Order: sequence, then C-alpha cells, then structure tokens
Amino acid sequence: MVRTKKEQTVEFKCIRGGNGETEMHKILNSTEELYGKGRMFNLMILAPGNTIGEHRHEGDNEIFYFLKGSGVYNDNGNPVRVFPGDTAICNNGECHSLVNDGDEPLEFIALILY
Amino acid sequence: MVRTKKEQTVEFKCIRGGNGETEMHKILNSTEELYGKGRMFNLMILAPGNTIGEHRHEGDNEIFYFLKGSGVYNDNGNPVRVFPGDTAICNNGECHSLVNDGDEPLEFIALILY
Repeated sequence: MVRTKKEQTVEFKCIRGGNGETEMHKILNSTEELYGKGRMFNLMILAPGNTIGEHRHEGDNEIFYFLKGSGVYNDNGNPVRVFPGDTAICNNGECHSLVNDGDEPLEFIALILY
Repeated sequence: MVRTKKEQTVEFKCIRGGNGETEMHKILNSTEELYGKGRMFNLMILAPGNTIGEHRHEGDNEIFYFLKGSGVYNDNGNPVRVFPGDTAICNNGECHSLVNDGDEPLEFIALILY
C-alpha cells in the first residue's frame, strides 16, 4: 500500500525539554506498523534555533540520518557537527541531544528500534 | 557515535533484474547494526530510466519513503505514481517493483524489517 504525504500524520512536539517544537512526519504510525520491532520512524524537521533536549535511551536504540541543513549532535556529551548524509547512532543506555544552530531547517530521518 | 557520509558504504547493484544499477548508501551496515530487527536501512538513488525488478517479500517487510523525484511504484500489480513524502509499504508475502520514469534521480529511504 501507498500512503501519500497528505494522508500522513504530522505532529509538532517539544521533545525532551528542548527549545521549540519539532515537526514530526510519521512514515509509519505505530509499533504495529513497525512489525513490533520499534516505536518510531519519522521525518523530523527542526527549525533554526530549535533543539531536542538531552535524554538517555533505555530499552531502545535511535538512529538519525541527516538529510538537509546542519546542526550539532551531542553524542554522549561529545558535540559533533552533522551534515546531510551523516548517520548518528544512539544505542540502548546512551545519551544524545540535537541543536539546529544553522539558518535553515535541519531535516533528518529518525528510527527507534527495540 | 556518528558515521559521516564519507565513512559510509556505497554500493551499486542491479536489484531483482531491474534496469541499471541502484546507488545504495548504507545508513546501517548489517543486521547486527539493526539490532537483529531487520536487514537493510539505506538511502537509495535510482537514476532516470532505471528500475527495481518485481519481487515478493517472504519473511520480511520493506518500507520505502520517497525524498526526491517521482516514479511509478508497483503495489502488488497496481501502479501508483509516487512523490516526495509518500510512503510505500510492502508487507511479508506482498510484491513490489519501482520505475524511475522521470528526468531526475528518484531518491528514497528503504528499510527492511523482519
């Protein structure tokens, strides 16, 4: 089946106490749609100046794949500048956060697997 | 950890008897990196005129999320024109194929979960 962009769910959410709201386009809608293997598969858009607050993953793992813009990814306390085409992996037990310090939207795919 | 675009693996592969080779940028490299939950998480680039041949998924499920360009997705024999932001879901037991009939590269994320 094909779910068109118009049929998809879009949410705006302040994530983990970050600045502003992140635009979240749901590629898949639920754990059931992820075949029970995860809980999120989204296109994320972080506006300039916005952030995702630092948090630890407990019981799951999150992968970011950057598509547009640039920002600073906090990898367990270590800041790393990220660009389109980069992958950030936050394994179970690890911490991350993200800052869009640029002047264009920071777009990335986010996948959380158990 | 962050794996930069330069550090990632890129493969060119004729997929399922399709026309031409698909450029495959590995977001994650292996089933182990997918936490045992799947076997592929790639950015895929299908050049104009190229195709992915029709095939059935047996024992896994594949999701395409379209980023750039346009093409025709064959959804169990039913042709559907796809655009950026559309999601195509091929569940276990279903068939799909893909044609880039446009004049620009067709880019999409492909995720295979068990």
